[in-house]
Amino acid sequence: MCGIVGYIGTKEAQGILLEGLSKLEYRGYDSAGLAVYNGETIGVRKAKGRLSNLEDKLAVHSLPGQLGIGHTRWATHGKPSDENSHPHVDNAGRFAVVHNGIIENYLELKEELIASGHQFTSETDTEVIAKLLAELWNGDLVSTVQQVVSRLEGAYALGIISEYEPDKLVAVRLASPLVVGVGEGENFVASDIPAILKHTRNVYILEDGEMAVLTADKVTLMKVDGTPVQRETMRVNWDIATAEKGGYDHFMLKEIHEQPKAIRDTLASRTKNGLVDLSKEISLSKEEIQNIEKIHFVACGTAYHAGMVGKYVFEELARIPVECDVASEYRYRNPIITERTLVIVVSQSGETADTLAALREAKKQGARVVAITNVVGSSVAREADDVIITWAGPEIAVASTKAYTSQLIAIYLLGVYFAQVRGHKSAAELQEIVTHLQELPGKAEQVLKLEKSIESFARSIAKHQNLFFLGRGLDFAVALEGSLKLKEISYIHSEAYAAGELKHGTLALIEENIPVISLATQKSVYDKMVSNIQEVKARGAHILGLAVEGDTELRKSVDEVIRIPATIDLLTPVLAVIPLQLIAYYACVERGYDVDKPRNLAKSVTVE
Amino acid sequence: MCGIVGYIGTKEAQGILLEGLSKLEYRGYDSAGLAVYNGETIGVRKAKGRLSNLEDKLAVHSLPGQLGIGHTRWATHGKPSDENSHPHVDNAGRFAVVHNGIIENYLELKEELIASGHQFTSETDTEVIAKLLAELWNGDLVSTVQQVVSRLEGAYALGIISEYEPDKLVAVRLASPLVVGVGEGENFVASDIPAILKHTRNVYILEDGEMAVLTADKVTLMKVDGTPVQRETMRVNWDIATAEKGGYDHFMLKEIHEQPKAIRDTLASRTKNGLVDLSKEISLSKEEIQNIEKIHFVACGTAYHAGMVGKYVFEELARIPVECDVASEYRYRNPIITERTLVIVVSQSGETADTLAALREAKKQGARVVAITNVVGSSVAREADDVIITWAGPEIAVASTKAYTSQLIAIYLLGVYFAQVRGHKSAAELQEIVTHLQELPGKAEQVLKLEKSIESFARSIAKHQNLFFLGRGLDFAVALEGSLKLKEISYIHSEAYAAGELKHGTLALIEENIPVISLATQKSVYDKMVSNIQEVKARGAHILGLAVEGDTELRKSVDEVIRIPATIDLLTPVLAVIPLQLIAYYACVERGYDVDKPRNLAKSVTVE
Repeated sequence: MCGIVGYIGTKEAQGILLEGLSKLEYRGYDSAGLAVYNGETIGVRKAKGRLSNLEDKLAVHSLPGQLGIGHTRWATHGKPSDENSHPHVDNAGRFAVVHNGIIENYLELKEELIASGHQFTSETDTEVIAKLLAELWNGDLVSTVQQVVSRLEGAYALGIISEYEPDKLVAVRLASPLVVGVGEGENFVASDIPAILKHTRNVYILEDGEMAVLTADKVTLMKVDGTPVQRETMRVNWDIATAEKGGYDHFMLKEIHEQPKAIRDTLASRTKNGLVDLSKEISLSKEEIQNIEKIHFVACGTAYHAGMVGKYVFEELARIPVECDVASEYRYRNPIITERTLVIVVSQSGETADTLAALREAKKQGARVVAITNVVGSSVAREADDVIITWAGPEIAVASTKAYTSQLIAIYLLGVYFAQVRGHKSAAELQEIVTHLQELPGKAEQVLKLEKSIESFARSIAKHQNLFFLGRGLDFAVALEGSLKLKEISYIHSEAYAAGELKHGTLALIEENIPVISLATQKSVYDKMVSNIQEVKARGAHILGLAVEGDTELRKSVDEVIRIPATIDLLTPVLAVIPLQLIAYYACVERGYDVDKPRNLAKSVTVE
Repeated sequence: MCGIVGYIGTKEAQGILLEGLSKLEYRGYDSAGLAVYNGETIGVRKAKGRLSNLEDKLAVHSLPGQLGIGHTRWATHGKPSDENSHPHVDNAGRFAVVHNGIIENYLELKEELIASGHQFTSETDTEVIAKLLAELWNGDLVSTVQQVVSRLEGAYALGIISEYEPDKLVAVRLASPLVVGVGEGENFVASDIPAILKHTRNVYILEDGEMAVLTADKVTLMKVDGTPVQRETMRVNWDIATAEKGGYDHFMLKEIHEQPKAIRDTLASRTKNGLVDLSKEISLSKEEIQNIEKIHFVACGTAYHAGMVGKYVFEELARIPVECDVASEYRYRNPIITERTLVIVVSQSGETADTLAALREAKKQGARVVAITNVVGSSVAREADDVIITWAGPEIAVASTKAYTSQLIAIYLLGVYFAQVRGHKSAAELQEIVTHLQELPGKAEQVLKLEKSIESFARSIAKHQNLFFLGRGLDFAVALEGSLKLKEISYIHSEAYAAGELKHGTLALIEENIPVISLATQKSVYDKMVSNIQEVKARGAHILGLAVEGDTELRKSVDEVIRIPATIDLLTPVLAVIPLQLIAYYACVERGYDVDKPRNLAKSVTVE
């Protein structure tokens, strides 16, 4: 996963490209680079590390010119380094390329190109593209690019310039996102809209297998085989200011605090008179909903944890058997899909490569697909049969918070909607759930008021290298998410366990004073959970218990307790996760790491 | 598998026999018994359960005398009970016999003996031997034993005494181990050396088809047809602790090395002519197998990881959708069960409390239940509708090894058996799988030859507190098991990840030099796996790759590589897990912990 930008026009490219990259750092930030054509040759500057390192280099040796491409990298092939940074060039320096994605057959191509005399300077898969451009050069840039692309296997978005035709910028998309911005006397390409929003609000969103040829005055779209493509530009109405930190120290903390609003917005206009109405979003007929035989939740990371809650929701409310799969596993395990299978994919960005590929596989095999995503117009949203948008707003911090709770709300809404049709629960029972759903934004605000005491616990565990989360049932699903948050930003090796499973091996790791965060919010397994807490207590663990308001029992078995407002068991995950997000946040702050940009991770994972 | 001992001399036999049995409990411990000649008659005491139960009985009613035999049982034919315990006697009580092994033609002999007026009190195969001794008695013990043996088919070791010739103890060996200990004025027989090592270090090791006739002063060896055998005694230099473990330092290492035999025994007699035949064990009719709509695997710990392999096996071979659940979660999550649901529970001991409770819940809701267990007559075996026994023999080390690989074999057998009925695969494809199954014992032996290089890797990682296992598909299931082994005994915080999921958060924990054990044995996801390996390599991880013989590619992406013999993807887990077991073992040894009894854990978890 990486971010790419490109500019062609009459202004100096360098500043425009750098500013664009700064808006794409959420896609990767372990190194960056620019290539700009100066009227005679292509100059290249690259630097390992944050974008500021590149800016420092350019402050000394700038790159003049009005045609250029830029890149901010998240390493896949080859470690972050100057050499592995993009753009990559051929040996004569006549072609430069930036790339997002993976070229799967690069080893084979590399051997072939080495045999033809090309010399490689990086460990990347990308460099073969630059060399191939030189190798296959036929006097016409567009046609050469088409030939190069025909040799590539994998997923990619490309931006290409050449000394030979310095009036052109060529962009290609296969499975990695790419947009073209249309200006006046200038045009742009970028991995995402914010990178070009300062310059234009008129964009084309490239689809798979399409390419764009930009001159300063014109944008021509075509398929990679040359077939012309006609499309209207789309007008973007977003406000850049929504992406500001709003007074918080970090985007993550801001986004944690935005959860009451995100929950409220995601619920809004979808419930009335105690009923859920998704008929505008879900095109499935009542009969089709009745006929669903099984549901597959497919997602990655945090969204996968939302899917785990979904398993309980749909099995409980609609009595439909649910499997919940990690997307990267699902697509390769030959899942059993029939036309009565509903696949629900969950992805904040809507561009998660594994999830998108799973969606395509499921559709190919005849499944109906519903997407839950935070990004209108994202690949997942476009390709699913139906979409439920989570109205969480842009999420900038790499560690997802408000997207998760909004995904849960979307899942509850869909679950109740199906339950209304399938009739396994009475109208009164479902109305009660809707009432409780509507109380969640207010209760989430109450949880946020516990911030000070949570901060104090979080700072106390920051010195540990290992800890555990325990829970049963829905608490286990939430424990997994809390544990992931902590790993992502604090780098503490945390692991979540189904509390009853711990004694089948992992209990061996429990030693004196190790912190164990134990969730005990589920009434149906409360006593069993307390027994499991005793097991770790007996081995000397230091236990934080997460209980529901009014619970005076748990305090007797744990060292510290946090109590969240009461709701029904099924909806508790929305409230229970918030203290865990805050624990991760403050543990990270205490350890002094970069909250919003954890090492090795990118916001939206658009490679497999 | 059972343990037998015998004594003839001038000391009281009871104490010597009991002490001998205590050294043989690793061979079985579900019931025990003694028979001692008191100068007039043979007295017998037997008790279900651990040896201490028998000792309690003997404390009240002892067995005086200087000639006796003893037995500690691991049930095969007939559940553990007082009646089924050995020794067995004829109706007049003149002969007593202890037996290790299986008499294959016992049903036929039993009918014949019943017709002759003998009354049977047990469900065992052994009892026919006692009755046959009485039936064929010809006035000479040695010659009578030879006649009895000529009627027996199967594998056995026997110890026999008789009131008629109380100066003799007769021992016979066919395919089950038996040693004779030579003392001064006393002699001994036993299944294994540790049982007699306190009394003598001079032993004969009986060979197949041999018998020994012991008096207090003399040992005579012969073939079962009477041909004399001349052999020198062997001098044993082991200490008792080593001897108990068959020369290995720990039971876990011994059990890792017993896997080729456990696999072979679990396969034996269940395959013929390229077909799997479980019709004696599985009472489901063809129609019932056809009608299965879904399968739930339910288990804990290592057995749960076997169930995860089961998901692939049944979805792939029989196209039945499978859910795999942790037992402690399953029973409380209100699973959707119909009468067309098959629940497969897996438990080494057959007494795992969570698994047993889940079995009962499933039966209550109308599911059919098949159990895979290592213990005949265990609670799980008794309560399930059908049982497949894994013939791994008693597993003593807390960290399960041979039970896991045997469970896999049972799962493959059942999967192929279902596939034969359901017809999703051709007969030729299934036969090929059976052929590959039969090659596994030999290939497992080859894996064990890699021990030295695995040991060296394991010792090198022992200083780390954290590490990761990665795999995709079946490799992920094996990675989970490898990771659990390491946690259980070395207390390294190890975690297994689906390789494609790592970048969705946990990649943040990958830092310079952290060990990552990466499994790349599955052809279908090999390229994707290599890409994931590049991702962790780029972050500085030290990578051990697990590949299949003939793979020369992986070495380029990893720091060290171990290659296991090639088989089909589906069966690879049986071989892939063995190096991971050895890594856990040697990492534990290097760290100086107690391999066989890790802290906080018990062998069989009979509490929730």
